[in-house]
Amino acid sequence: MTNIIITIFERAFDKGRGLARDMRIRWALEEVGQSYAVKPIPWEAFREAAHLARNPFGQIPTYEEGNLVLFESGAIVLHIAERFPGLLPQDSELRARAIMWIFAALSTIEPPIVDRDVVRHSEAGKDWQLERLAMVDERIRTRLRQLSAHMREAHWLVEAFSAADIIMVHVLRRLEGSGLLEEFPNLAAYIARAEARPAYKRAFEAQLAAFKGAQ
Amino acid sequence: MTNIIITIFERAFDKGRGLARDMRIRWALEEVGQSYAVKPIPWEAFREAAHLARNPFGQIPTYEEGNLVLFESGAIVLHIAERFPGLLPQDSELRARAIMWIFAALSTIEPPIVDRDVVRHSEAGKDWQLERLAMVDERIRTRLRQLSAHMREAHWLVEAFSAADIIMVHVLRRLEGSGLLEEFPNLAAYIARAEARPAYKRAFEAQLAAFKGAQ
Repeated sequence: MTNIIITIFERAFDKGRGLARDMRIRWALEEVGQSYAVKPIPWEAFREAAHLARNPFGQIPTYEEGNLVLFESGAIVLHIAERFPGLLPQDSELRARAIMWIFAALSTIEPPIVDRDVVRHSEAGKDWQLERLAMVDERIRTRLRQLSAHMREAHWLVEAFSAADIIMVHVLRRLEGSGLLEEFPNLAAYIARAEARPAYKRAFEAQLAAFKGAQ
Repeated sequence: MTNIIITIFERAFDKGRGLARDMRIRWALEEVGQSYAVKPIPWEAFREAAHLARNPFGQIPTYEEGNLVLFESGAIVLHIAERFPGLLPQDSELRARAIMWIFAALSTIEPPIVDRDVVRHSEAGKDWQLERLAMVDERIRTRLRQLSAHMREAHWLVEAFSAADIIMVHVLRRLEGSGLLEEFPNLAAYIARAEARPAYKRAFEAQLAAFKGAQ
């Protein structure tokens, strides 16, 4: 039995929609069949020494297992995938490609999607907001078009479902409600396929229960 | 002997300052003592099928070795670090921490730094440009302050020099000329320490020679 602890913010900003990055860790652990404990911290704790010792940038999630303390959801999911079987291909070339797609999701796809929320929230009330939102949406559309063209009818990024799909699907889900995903039916189908996995459903229910419990 | 090929853009946008991401790959290969060939492609090739087959997002660098084709500089540096000794700690916990810092550099530090260039170039002429630049600089400053507080007098991110330092130093170097690095003397010293490494110097000279040769 392992003794894994993940930190989350006590009250999820997304109101239980599973968009906070602890969802990625919960989902990965459900896929490999590992139980975990959750340590909810108040949002204000991101400035406090106890949390900064876990993550100097004050973000969630963190992952603790014995003496090992990790932050960065990409690093944590990769660690889980290396530690427990089921989330990376055995073949070394396919394995390298799956890891590559974790980086692609985080470095190439996610930044403009996060920037969209910066425009929507931090730039609310600026008279440039709508003009910049349109510019950011075009950057997102370019990446979605390229990803869509690459995936075609593929079910997953690298043959079988892998850690890369956990990160990519979760990154894309942040666009729910924007209308952008609907422009690329194969990507919308990809997300729906992932959300139908029992491990995804268990992780989603667990984060929703944590949100409801904190209310 | 390996047969490694990396793609670069024929004419570096940074005029040989070593800010394009092929520098990360050159540096990693120099650190582990592996030679490589370079395939320069015209900038316009990012839309062409031959390059899109290597990288569906049309970016550089890519890494080819036999049948393995990788893109994303983070994934390539991690692959090099796993394939050849010298860039990751042996100890499994320290190794996981080094990989975590690769993700931290790319997911937490790099996005606002890249956004700064978006403001400077893609938003030139907008009447909001200076106001938004100040907002982005504050986001960058927050991350640099946190990184600086974490590193204190440490020479490298995780005990000995590792793949994480290659990515982090290269990410930070993109701020040269902004004046932001000078606000954090320990980070400026960290970059200088990395630039003094013989492998860094060899990689820098090689990319500069490629730039001059293309003129």
